[in-house]
Amino acid sequence: MMSNTIAILTDYGLKDPYVGMVKAVINRINPQAVIIDITHEVPKYRVDVGAFILKTSYKYFRRGTIFLAVVDPEVGTTRKGIVIRTKNYVFVGPNNGLLTPAALEDTIEGVYEIREDSVRLWEVSETFHGRDIFAPVATLISIKTPIESLCSPLPTNELVIIDIPPRKPVFEDGQVITKVFYIDDFGNLILDQKLEDILDVLKTGLGDDLIIRSKGREYRVKITKTFAEVCEGCIAIYRNSLGLAEVGVFKGNASKALGICEGDVIRIGKVL
Amino acid sequence: MMSNTIAILTDYGLKDPYVGMVKAVINRINPQAVIIDITHEVPKYRVDVGAFILKTSYKYFRRGTIFLAVVDPEVGTTRKGIVIRTKNYVFVGPNNGLLTPAALEDTIEGVYEIREDSVRLWEVSETFHGRDIFAPVATLISIKTPIESLCSPLPTNELVIIDIPPRKPVFEDGQVITKVFYIDDFGNLILDQKLEDILDVLKTGLGDDLIIRSKGREYRVKITKTFAEVCEGCIAIYRNSLGLAEVGVFKGNASKALGICEGDVIRIGKVL
Amino acid sequence: MMSNTIAILTDYGLKDPYVGMVKAVINRINPQAVIIDITHEVPKYRVDVGAFILKTSYKYFRRGTIFLAVVDPEVGTTRKGIVIRTKNYVFVGPNNGLLTPAALEDTIEGVYEIREDSVRLWEVSETFHGRDIFAPVATLISIKTPIESLCSPLPTNELVIIDIPPRKPVFEDGQVITKVFYIDDFGNLILDQKLEDILDVLKTGLGDDLIIRSKGREYRVKITKTFAEVCEGCIAIYRNSLGLAEVGVFKGNASKALGICEGDVIRIGKVL
Repeated sequence: MMSNTIAILTDYGLKDPYVGMVKAVINRINPQAVIIDITHEVPKYRVDVGAFILKTSYKYFRRGTIFLAVVDPEVGTTRKGIVIRTKNYVFVGPNNGLLTPAALEDTIEGVYEIREDSVRLWEVSETFHGRDIFAPVATLISIKTPIESLCSPLPTNELVIIDIPPRKPVFEDGQVITKVFYIDDFGNLILDQKLEDILDVLKTGLGDDLIIRSKGREYRVKITKTFAEVCEGCIAIYRNSLGLAEVGVFKGNASKALGICEGDVIRIGKVL
Repeated sequence: MMSNTIAILTDYGLKDPYVGMVKAVINRINPQAVIIDITHEVPKYRVDVGAFILKTSYKYFRRGTIFLAVVDPEVGTTRKGIVIRTKNYVFVGPNNGLLTPAALEDTIEGVYEIREDSVRLWEVSETFHGRDIFAPVATLISIKTPIESLCSPLPTNELVIIDIPPRKPVFEDGQVITKVFYIDDFGNLILDQKLEDILDVLKTGLGDDLIIRSKGREYRVKITKTFAEVCEGCIAIYRNSLGLAEVGVFKGNASKALGICEGDVIRIGKVL
Repeated sequence: MMSNTIAILTDYGLKDPYVGMVKAVINRINPQAVIIDITHEVPKYRVDVGAFILKTSYKYFRRGTIFLAVVDPEVGTTRKGIVIRTKNYVFVGPNNGLLTPAALEDTIEGVYEIREDSVRLWEVSETFHGRDIFAPVATLISIKTPIESLCSPLPTNELVIIDIPPRKPVFEDGQVITKVFYIDDFGNLILDQKLEDILDVLKTGLGDDLIIRSKGREYRVKITKTFAEVCEGCIAIYRNSLGLAEVGVFKGNASKALGICEGDVIRIGKVL
């Protein structure tokens, strides 16, 4: 069921040749491989953001896609490289929680530890396993190399699990306490909870207004289906395309306009 | 005459997984598709800049290329999704003027409104028609699905038309009034008029100097064929590769050096 | 021995449609071409950084890859466009030193000057030879067009050679004098010398500490195999994946934390 589509997610950025080298290795081993970038701009070392993005993205890919995901601050230490086979896909990367939310959702069918000596194309760098280990393993799998010839079985309970959104709403003094999990390139504030959950707790709904409070300031926002329903420069809260509550400014940048950063706490309450 | 090349232009940026999801959908429907990014860094919501870039880029693509273009601040409202068939290409995106300058130049042969129910791969998001509607439609067309089975005819006069450069020169007090339409990644100031038109009005030509005035300051610039003809750090005005007048600093960043931003007015006159 | 893989390295950035146009031209001439981006974020006009990145990257690509490299501040002047055939690859770009370090390492087998009139697809722009000359030449070579039909022989001694790292260590007052050649997207400081050379001169090794001095401040750093061996926020010096000495902060940004920029001098000495 393996396809020749390899999807890549990293925190390498696009300034350096690191992503290009990874693709060179893929193309060298499998010139037929179709390489698709999910993103290379995961905030550096944010394994949780990478795991969240992978979990929200993987299901749009064709069956048999092999995911090569590397956000790997512990590269070169004892953390293991792993392969997870799921119902529809294969995931390759470090065992630090990056792969598990997506893999668990798709139903895990096999977990393996990469044997580093199985892919010695050249001297393995201490700091670049994406190029030297994960890319060769992912690509060899794409040309039907049996996973067992590259890896040893790993007990499923050795998989590192991390906590990613959506989180359960915390209700306190009539307000829902949320955190800004991630700010996207539009400056929209992606919260760590589902809009439906927040609205359920507050017993409110589409078209109503809410008050959001952060850093000693408060703002009135409209609950909408899309941010285009408010006037230019106005603030809306809506269910975003990743399934989370999101605060956006129509034709503006909410993060800059409100001075709110990743990790900031936002309290959401009803208009009294 | 359809090819399997799909060219994408958006304002999604590369930080988020949005572009990756769009490509996943394309690859899922047509694994043979060749995907080429025009750019994903159109300034957010600048439909006019997107339309200009699309118009300057499309003609370099092979015949039969399908253009998937999304700069779409009104996503989720009543604005329609459209397909335009032209002499050599197909354009897919929102009906907000983004596609029309390129399509008109290549000669329009058919205009269609997308029937959203024709591409239900999954629940359609209110805010991400690029992934949920435009990508499936563009890709289905690339595998020879008749446009008529996905769309209804749309009267050509319902196409939204927007004004993009080159604009006609405005002559006032011996000076040509121009506007900075766009600043490229090198910091070059791309003006909204053709160099030929400016030189015609001012009755001057290659090798002469001009005075440009903006924000109370003035600069002497040389009219050149390329910005490498002046000394390092000096200012030149030349015809850029997009066909517009451009002000650049050799081995420097004109926007930063001159403190000039997108939308600023520049007055161009002769040296007295 | 030519493959249909074309690898691109430029300083065009990804904001503008320039890279997209180059790829359009490639796809138009050879729809089977597999295009891989090395990077398009070479610092503007830094031919030396481009040459270094190309030299560190090329060898990971499959045999027969054609490299299209454009960092070209003198475009439109008398600098020549060239093709270099080496033992395993072909390099296409300007004759300004960009291609020579990689080509020399792989062993040069033929040097050619591009005849601009051999690739007139349309009017050649004065400022965009990447699209109008280098892309067509590289792609025509990928479909087995004889290089001799596009180019004239060029004497090897007309190749421009530039100096790139690694440089020989300079030892002065018990310290090694290095320069920050390049700062990567993680903020790591890539020095212009090999770690092995620095350690040899200082007669020290893995696990020891060093003192680095820059801009009147000094820092204690640990010599490690990878930056993950120090505690979060601590500074390490190690051999990076490009083969040079690199100063990094574990889970941090060394450039911002230390206030050190590209081109700054760093003096490295032993702890007394």
